[in-house]
Amino acid sequence: MTNIDRPYCETLDAQDALASLRTEFHLPTGMIYLDGNSLGAQPKAAFERARHVIQEEWGNDLIKSWNKAGWFDLPSRLGNLLAPLIGAKAEEVVITDSTSINLFKAIAAALHLQAQKSDAETRKVIITERSNFPTDIYMAEGLTKWLDRGYRLHLIDSPDELASAIKHDTALVMLTHVNYRTGALHDMAKITVLAHAQGALCLWDLAHSAGAVEVDLHQANADFAVGCCYKYLNGGPGAPAFIWVPQRHQAQFHHPLTGWWGHAAPFAMQASFTATPDIRRALCGTQPIVSLAMIESGLTIFGKTTMAAVRQKSLALTDLFIQLVEARCARHQLGLVTPRHHAQRGSHVSFTHAHAYAVIQALIARGVVGDYREPGIMRFGFTPLYTSYAEVWDAVEILQEILDQKTYDANIQRHTVT
Amino acid sequence: MTNIDRPYCETLDAQDALASLRTEFHLPTGMIYLDGNSLGAQPKAAFERARHVIQEEWGNDLIKSWNKAGWFDLPSRLGNLLAPLIGAKAEEVVITDSTSINLFKAIAAALHLQAQKSDAETRKVIITERSNFPTDIYMAEGLTKWLDRGYRLHLIDSPDELASAIKHDTALVMLTHVNYRTGALHDMAKITVLAHAQGALCLWDLAHSAGAVEVDLHQANADFAVGCCYKYLNGGPGAPAFIWVPQRHQAQFHHPLTGWWGHAAPFAMQASFTATPDIRRALCGTQPIVSLAMIESGLTIFGKTTMAAVRQKSLALTDLFIQLVEARCARHQLGLVTPRHHAQRGSHVSFTHAHAYAVIQALIARGVVGDYREPGIMRFGFTPLYTSYAEVWDAVEILQEILDQKTYDANIQRHTVT
Repeated sequence: MTNIDRPYCETLDAQDALASLRTEFHLPTGMIYLDGNSLGAQPKAAFERARHVIQEEWGNDLIKSWNKAGWFDLPSRLGNLLAPLIGAKAEEVVITDSTSINLFKAIAAALHLQAQKSDAETRKVIITERSNFPTDIYMAEGLTKWLDRGYRLHLIDSPDELASAIKHDTALVMLTHVNYRTGALHDMAKITVLAHAQGALCLWDLAHSAGAVEVDLHQANADFAVGCCYKYLNGGPGAPAFIWVPQRHQAQFHHPLTGWWGHAAPFAMQASFTATPDIRRALCGTQPIVSLAMIESGLTIFGKTTMAAVRQKSLALTDLFIQLVEARCARHQLGLVTPRHHAQRGSHVSFTHAHAYAVIQALIARGVVGDYREPGIMRFGFTPLYTSYAEVWDAVEILQEILDQKTYDANIQRHTVT
Repeated sequence: MTNIDRPYCETLDAQDALASLRTEFHLPTGMIYLDGNSLGAQPKAAFERARHVIQEEWGNDLIKSWNKAGWFDLPSRLGNLLAPLIGAKAEEVVITDSTSINLFKAIAAALHLQAQKSDAETRKVIITERSNFPTDIYMAEGLTKWLDRGYRLHLIDSPDELASAIKHDTALVMLTHVNYRTGALHDMAKITVLAHAQGALCLWDLAHSAGAVEVDLHQANADFAVGCCYKYLNGGPGAPAFIWVPQRHQAQFHHPLTGWWGHAAPFAMQASFTATPDIRRALCGTQPIVSLAMIESGLTIFGKTTMAAVRQKSLALTDLFIQLVEARCARHQLGLVTPRHHAQRGSHVSFTHAHAYAVIQALIARGVVGDYREPGIMRFGFTPLYTSYAEVWDAVEILQEILDQKTYDANIQRHTVT
């Protein structure tokens, strides 16, 4: 990698068609932010959007804004803006609640669909990965334990097990498209084929892929999807999440969280629940409007490029990072956890190190913000909309200095963030 | 009522100990806002709070804010601020998710508690009012249908039925403390005694009472409570809701929405769920931080008075409104729906009228903002923190003019808001 230097990285930035989009974001001076996979940076437009909602819509128009400012329609309107980024059609996505709550709805709906089949009594297994993001596993656990109808979780340790694990007893295959720790990317289309061949349904958590990798839910023939708006979509801290239900499943999308926002006539104030026939049946209760509205500022920026361009730059950034780290930090026993193959890589890169937590703290102190994940993983996210090639260079330079000069605190305890 | 005139109302304002709190709110010029029971007005401090979260905490500190700005602890910290307003203790309330979702958790937990008892097989009835806010009924419907264990809803038509309806087969009595249409207030302590005497649990929805009437959950010995932060608490449009679980029920508070925020060690990333032993087990997933943070601005204002003072003014305002309307609009066949007895009245007043929807539209056009609720109800909310006695006078004056002069459109269709 001796032919790569900072001027070369600057040349890549100069040639980068996405470089101008960086100006859409507020990025703190002196910080190289490699954690957009955890909390996306702030679109400059988000503050003005929030100001308008708070001062004009809430402050001046008050209750009228539910109709006048379109608050009621925000979950659908924003869902329609998001849809093209994940290969969904209009009126198939709503933005609402949290990813955890949306997982619950989708798992419940999948089990309900399977319970209608003639082999329902023997189709009781939900397959997921032991390394899936914990809340995905917990929500499935909570639902199946509570239902108490013989459903059980089968946790696999490697995607290689999927082909044999998915059988005629599989009700649902529930996977996170890009693994939150390793950055490994599943082949959505291939796995969905495996699942459907055995009569199983497929639910995808797109938390680390929406806005980061190309997703085509319809091409993959996926059944359900959920995901997060505060990571690569830059919707703001804890922004409500999304849920996708394709047209073909909507009439049969049944879940127990039947709140008034999912009613066919929410303002008729009827004393029993009738689900609306459309995607809005995935809604439950009143949504946090200010946090919800700001999501639009993040989504709008994606309208200025394509997911193909985003993906191309994402791979170039992660390639560059891997190459530079391996060349410059070769003697420091870093272990690459993230797959080298493009087809298997999301938009973050993880390395193991004996002092992973201490090194991350040292990096943060020097302005390079990645994060630590148990056990022993340093995680670095690359956000094509605002990460530059020169930043990748600088981040690795600082990492090398910290490792060469041992300026991390080797005595620091591996720390579980609270 | 001939002795009441506008100068008299102005005198009441001059003597009102709460009058100065009105300056804490942004209230649009030329509007008499009588809909704080639907969406509370904007505390002036809310915008600066949101600005700080967006520009400083999100914009500049990014991911660090989860710890540095205390984002993780917001649900508990704000819950502790809210607790004294409803007679709850510290570490018994969290602010999170929507009221609908919190109802689901509380109903599930109540049924789980009952299922541990020796008479579980015969204790299968959930009692609520047919006139309860629809989402309360819908969430209970969704949950019981899914559980499919013989639970059934018993909808009563009058609180008078409670004494005979609550029997040894009652698992849960689930009521909204103040009815959203009529403004009728239940006797929480008395009903809870009835329920407990038969072995039933009591869940209270405080949507229209938190911040409006005096609530003492512990004195009433209630079992669970949920409620809304965007009405009388002025937390902002769709602000996250609250859930109260008293210490004595926390260890047995089991519900199926077991997301990572309710885990005993959320960042240990374990592959199976273990509930935290405290109130945080009512949490599920990541919360919308900007909408959540603004709730503090509303709660802080309550720290400048007492709920006893708020209640006293609320009753004075609703008394005045009822007296003036009945005196001045006597010939217009308005029907008072709200109870006259103080002990049975919340903080809004509802009247029926043959052209209720049309009259509300005419009022709004004149700057008096109440709202319409099916069927045929004009609803007026009185918020002691910012409603003045002179406004009550002016609102009734305008109502009288509209009715006397028939300046409403008698041909307008009764309209279900969408």
